[in-house]
Amino acid sequence: MTPLEEHTQKRVALIEADRALRVDNARVSRPLEDHADELVRRIRTEEATTVWGVEHEGVPHPFPGMEFLTGKDIISRTRLFGVIRKMPKGALLHVHLDLTVSPHTLLRFALQYSSFHIRSSEVVTCLNVSSVVLEIRPLAPDFPAEASSLTDACYPPMSWVPLCQARELFNEALGGPEGFDRWVTGHMSINPSTAYVTHNDNIRIWDKFRSAAMLSINIVHYAPIWRRYIRQFLEDTAADGILYVEARVNFSPRYMFDADGKMNVPHIEWLRIFRQVVEKFKQEREDFLDAKVIYTVIRDRDVEGLEDHLEDCLAMKKEFPDIIVGFDLVGDENTLVPLKDYLEPLIRFKERQKREGVSIPYIFHAGETCGDGTKADENLYDAILLGTKRIGHGFSLVKHPKLMQICREEGIALEVCPISNEILRLTASMPMHPLPILLNNGVPVALSSDDPAVFQNMGLSYDFYQVLVASEVTGLLTLGHLARDSITYSMLDGAEKAKLMHMWEDRWSKFLGELVTGEPCLN
Amino acid sequence: MTPLEEHTQKRVALIEADRALRVDNARVSRPLEDHADELVRRIRTEEATTVWGVEHEGVPHPFPGMEFLTGKDIISRTRLFGVIRKMPKGALLHVHLDLTVSPHTLLRFALQYSSFHIRSSEVVTCLNVSSVVLEIRPLAPDFPAEASSLTDACYPPMSWVPLCQARELFNEALGGPEGFDRWVTGHMSINPSTAYVTHNDNIRIWDKFRSAAMLSINIVHYAPIWRRYIRQFLEDTAADGILYVEARVNFSPRYMFDADGKMNVPHIEWLRIFRQVVEKFKQEREDFLDAKVIYTVIRDRDVEGLEDHLEDCLAMKKEFPDIIVGFDLVGDENTLVPLKDYLEPLIRFKERQKREGVSIPYIFHAGETCGDGTKADENLYDAILLGTKRIGHGFSLVKHPKLMQICREEGIALEVCPISNEILRLTASMPMHPLPILLNNGVPVALSSDDPAVFQNMGLSYDFYQVLVASEVTGLLTLGHLARDSITYSMLDGAEKAKLMHMWEDRWSKFLGELVTGEPCLN
Repeated sequence: MTPLEEHTQKRVALIEADRALRVDNARVSRPLEDHADELVRRIRTEEATTVWGVEHEGVPHPFPGMEFLTGKDIISRTRLFGVIRKMPKGALLHVHLDLTVSPHTLLRFALQYSSFHIRSSEVVTCLNVSSVVLEIRPLAPDFPAEASSLTDACYPPMSWVPLCQARELFNEALGGPEGFDRWVTGHMSINPSTAYVTHNDNIRIWDKFRSAAMLSINIVHYAPIWRRYIRQFLEDTAADGILYVEARVNFSPRYMFDADGKMNVPHIEWLRIFRQVVEKFKQEREDFLDAKVIYTVIRDRDVEGLEDHLEDCLAMKKEFPDIIVGFDLVGDENTLVPLKDYLEPLIRFKERQKREGVSIPYIFHAGETCGDGTKADENLYDAILLGTKRIGHGFSLVKHPKLMQICREEGIALEVCPISNEILRLTASMPMHPLPILLNNGVPVALSSDDPAVFQNMGLSYDFYQVLVASEVTGLLTLGHLARDSITYSMLDGAEKAKLMHMWEDRWSKFLGELVTGEPCLN
Repeated sequence: MTPLEEHTQKRVALIEADRALRVDNARVSRPLEDHADELVRRIRTEEATTVWGVEHEGVPHPFPGMEFLTGKDIISRTRLFGVIRKMPKGALLHVHLDLTVSPHTLLRFALQYSSFHIRSSEVVTCLNVSSVVLEIRPLAPDFPAEASSLTDACYPPMSWVPLCQARELFNEALGGPEGFDRWVTGHMSINPSTAYVTHNDNIRIWDKFRSAAMLSINIVHYAPIWRRYIRQFLEDTAADGILYVEARVNFSPRYMFDADGKMNVPHIEWLRIFRQVVEKFKQEREDFLDAKVIYTVIRDRDVEGLEDHLEDCLAMKKEFPDIIVGFDLVGDENTLVPLKDYLEPLIRFKERQKREGVSIPYIFHAGETCGDGTKADENLYDAILLGTKRIGHGFSLVKHPKLMQICREEGIALEVCPISNEILRLTASMPMHPLPILLNNGVPVALSSDDPAVFQNMGLSYDFYQVLVASEVTGLLTLGHLARDSITYSMLDGAEKAKLMHMWEDRWSKFLGELVTGEPCLN
């Protein structure tokens, strides 16, 4: 053997050893899968030049895995995205239900109820249109409108205007009714110049994220809309090839609005509606297995406040044993309360569950941060010691060799949200994202969308796309294994899980078949 | 033991296990070190609020570890930076000698020689002042000036103007002579709006980097300046507390300019001058041990071209056995030739060294990329298999568990260049940098500055600062260990290395003593 041959042989072995823990290395692939994988790699290579190597108007520097909000329109037009759209995705394990339906649909919903009103901190003008603070909420039927147009020079700041009227009378100079729609929905989501220029760091972008969430929550939390909202979410989700969902629902507010604009609809009713909508959807659709709820509360309360919620969570679990599948704390880990400060109630809650024969596993957010040794980063230690079944984000897990080993050995999957991480400025683009580190260390991963209403990444196709184009190692096969892992690490019981896996494998085979035998659009 | 106590105990053990491989965990610290470390942590915590938590004019979003070019002025004024400036840094192991001296000094040098001329692609005006292409070079004494001012409306594009004259006659509207200085030096470095707005991705910023390097090289490569240049580099380096240097010198051009502007000064003369300057500097200064050279060539040539350089490298090693300490290939790994395509000559070169009893270790750039499985990323496999003694950058090493293990076990240190990585847009800011992953995996690291003339991070203090403020785990102790590692993984022989370590430990103790007993500015 020549020295060069020796080098080449060692090189192959070294790469193999380096990738030994990868999910796409551990599981044997079928010829059909290999063929499809190859085809997808070919399309990716082509489009790296034909799509990402050319100039696009208004996109200063296109590249595969670029900033999502700037690149979304390009992505949507690629052949590769067309392929991914058709792929069955498995389970969606990390999504905040309150932030899933597109702002346009949400606004359309609100406009159909006369109880909805809007107000703004000033007269809306060309100058302040993007900085003014606005609020939308349902009010009682007998509530007298306080003003008629937000753009009238004499509009008294913070006066409520009926939503429809505010839209109709929105100044033509600001685009009239269509301008109103763009204005309101723009405040409910994040645009490129906010994410990548004015709020281009993890601290500031959270401000924008919170204000977008606050603006939409009063529409989502209107009982007649809540019902339609859940239906819409399920439809959008199933349309993207997602077969099963574990949605985080924020139970921090005690009540939502009833049809009359009164804040009096309790948690039990939220979940009754959820159950009704999901049951009906399941009956109608063969392509969707189920949707469950992870009870979440914002990590901003004191220990006593948390205990009230744990009590409530237990009561909901007893009322809806098949729906509630976990408990989590949400909100910016960098600024809010770390798990470390909630240890006593959280430990007690586990013991109580044992005594009462109930199981509400922890599925904690942890390590959604660039910090190293900060409280957000250290949440990872506590989440794991508290027995978390999965980790929400775990962005900083890659810094922790021991914790990665534990996740791998004990099967603690990470709910990785690529586009969310990028828009919230934990990573500047997908090629910088640490996902390959997790994969190469054999940490189980379920790709997730997090808050698609705000990030505009509805479904899982966009996140899958960004992951696929940002790595030469990852291929369609890898995405298939990640989809399988999303099922494996779901909270379904054995029989349901097997059923879901079967559903998925069926659709996967069909998808691969269509892909390689050449649906005209794909070959 | 209560469940909470149990959790707390497990938590301590888990964090310890997670950090077991860290260099600051493996080596025992002295009370003086602990005291100093604590003091520095206190200053850091204070300044996180008093400096980084307040608004600064012209800095839209300050935070610790922020974009260096925007934050540099803030950093320079901090107490913490004052401390780090005084710290002995050990060895500087990754620096491209041709890009070390500040553009201002370089221009000042050039202005002292009448042979220097400048030309530009168009008449320089307010409109094109930042986009025009310019060139500087020495010309023969009898060369007739082709024009007298770059800003005259009648300036014929690409005509040579004597540098001094171009400066004196630079249009007042563009700032006159001072405007000329700003203009030229601006083209030799990278400014915030280039790095963070117009060229804000790894592909485009390399264009700017290359043009900055090309503009200054004709000044650096003028033999009378080369001598002063090296002296200046050594002075700046020693002033920052660096005790020893292994500088990469780019031997891609065969000749540099002589005093008469003729391109006829061969490599042997470059190194003769280097030796003379270093010897003189060593004699004069007790605070500096030595400077050596890593022979480098740009990875843009064919195999034959590389072989010519290997031949030349061997000849230089025989002529300057104490100076040449390694061989490397440089330039953008994403676009230029990967090690894989140079395997045959590189393997043969090693065999030849063995036969001839010469040792020129490989110290390869590898993995300076965000790519995953790309040719730049895969350079890591070949570098390691070719027996590289250290790795230049290795930015993508963190994706490779097996390669990290090899580096740890075989003592292959990474030359990590935090500010370079950030300005070249591999990471958007220091908190996103993968350095903590390397540290937590026990990979030896030597922090380095790379190209301080372009990045404006002269010495090592700025890089040390950015590393220190971007992590709560890393402290002054860690920086001390990194400095020690820079000595341990230098190419010095046993006796020299021991001498250097002794020098460093002496200065370290002195530094700690002054720090804790309270130089007024530090306590």
